Amino acid sequence: MPFFDQSELEKLDKVYRLNLINSCTGYKSANLIGTRSLAGIENLAVFSSVTHLGSHPALLGFILRPTTVPRHTYQNIKSSGIFTVNHISSEIIAPAHQSSANYDAQTSEFEAVGLEKEYHHNLNVPFVKGAPVQLFCRYANEYSIQENHTIHLIAYIEKVFVAEGLLQDDGWLRLDKGKVVAINGLDGYALPSLVSRFTYARPNQPVQSTGGDS
Amino acid sequence: MPFFDQSELEKLDKVYRLNLINSCTGYKSANLIGTRSLAGIENLAVFSSVTHLGSHPALLGFILRPTTVPRHTYQNIKSSGIFTVNHISSEIIAPAHQSSANYDAQTSEFEAVGLEKEYHHNLNVPFVKGAPVQLFCRYANEYSIQENHTIHLIAYIEKVFVAEGLLQDDGWLRLDKGKVVAINGLDGYALPSLVSRFTYARPNQPVQSTGGDS
Repeated sequence: MPFFDQSELEKLDKVYRLNLINSCTGYKSANLIGTRSLAGIENLAVFSSVTHLGSHPALLGFILRPTTVPRHTYQNIKSSGIFTVNHISSEIIAPAHQSSANYDAQTSEFEAVGLEKEYHHNLNVPFVKGAPVQLFCRYANEYSIQENHTIHLIAYIEKVFVAEGLLQDDGWLRLDKGKVVAINGLDGYALPSLVSRFTYARPNQPVQSTGGDS
Repeated sequence: MPFFDQSELEKLDKVYRLNLINSCTGYKSANLIGTRSLAGIENLAVFSSVTHLGSHPALLGFILRPTTVPRHTYQNIKSSGIFTVNHISSEIIAPAHQSSANYDAQTSEFEAVGLEKEYHHNLNVPFVKGAPVQLFCRYANEYSIQENHTIHLIAYIEKVFVAEGLLQDDGWLRLDKGKVVAINGLDGYALPSLVSRFTYARPNQPVQSTGGDS
């Protein structure tokens, strides 16, 4: 069984450590965050750290490294207060990954990577056309993580757009119906298939499979 | 295209909203966190919020609702300073989900749900035997999320144990080789298959697929 302890992790080659530590926490959500600068430039960037925080109010969080690539995302969210979260489907993984390149502030990643944008209602921020789940979010707060100087940005989920076929009778979104992918490490894209849904777990009462669909 | 705005989200039935908002951020990591109380009771609980925070130092974070089910996890981490993170494979999704039931503090979820524990080296905290990736973590800090009174707990990844067959030459863990699952919402378990790995993205240089294995 391969094994790394703290002193070995310290001594690893940088890229080797990046690959290992980025993949050792499990699969990650695969989202494109869309923003718009005050000058009207539309920005798009891959994020694998978008995480559910709570349902009432509907809240999510994600991690930013302000000194590295996705800084336009942070600046645009700070200036406009809003952004979109767009699930990556298996059909767009190559252009989605390309959006993580370090383009200059005058370049819209939509045009650079060839992903189509769309606008909903009167919202002044771009969504990714065809993304099976699209969220409109409003900045709530941020927490500076002292341990490595990242930022944990918190936002309210104000609007949810869902492609046909995902939404089940009990509100659950069956993500494999939209070919939503998960990220493995920094650069691996994997396509999940539902194995099972389970009933609410209670002590001394084994969970039952609900078979998938609700 | 189904659509929910803020006022509709507010008015939804509680379970419907839980299902919708828990699945709208994408796939989540599927981990069992193992802890041990000062009295020696071994605790195990499913967490879907474990997220990579940084590689150097190796850091992860996860979200706790101290007033609800996983409170033993929090108490044990606070008293011992250590815990384990164990990836859930498709072979143990039923007992893993069962561990989310609200057992009393005297009950070890390992015995209650029938998952085998193991101890590595002289570490005084249980791992899940057979879990394809196992992490030994040390408490670093916690941030109180004012917006909904959850806790963002930060920990150092001090040791990484990996099953045979996952570790690639460049440090990347190919998770589908371990049948690691991802969580869809509160109660859906999905099994991903790798589609592609890509080269590092640079402007004006289309990403290349590396084919999966490295």
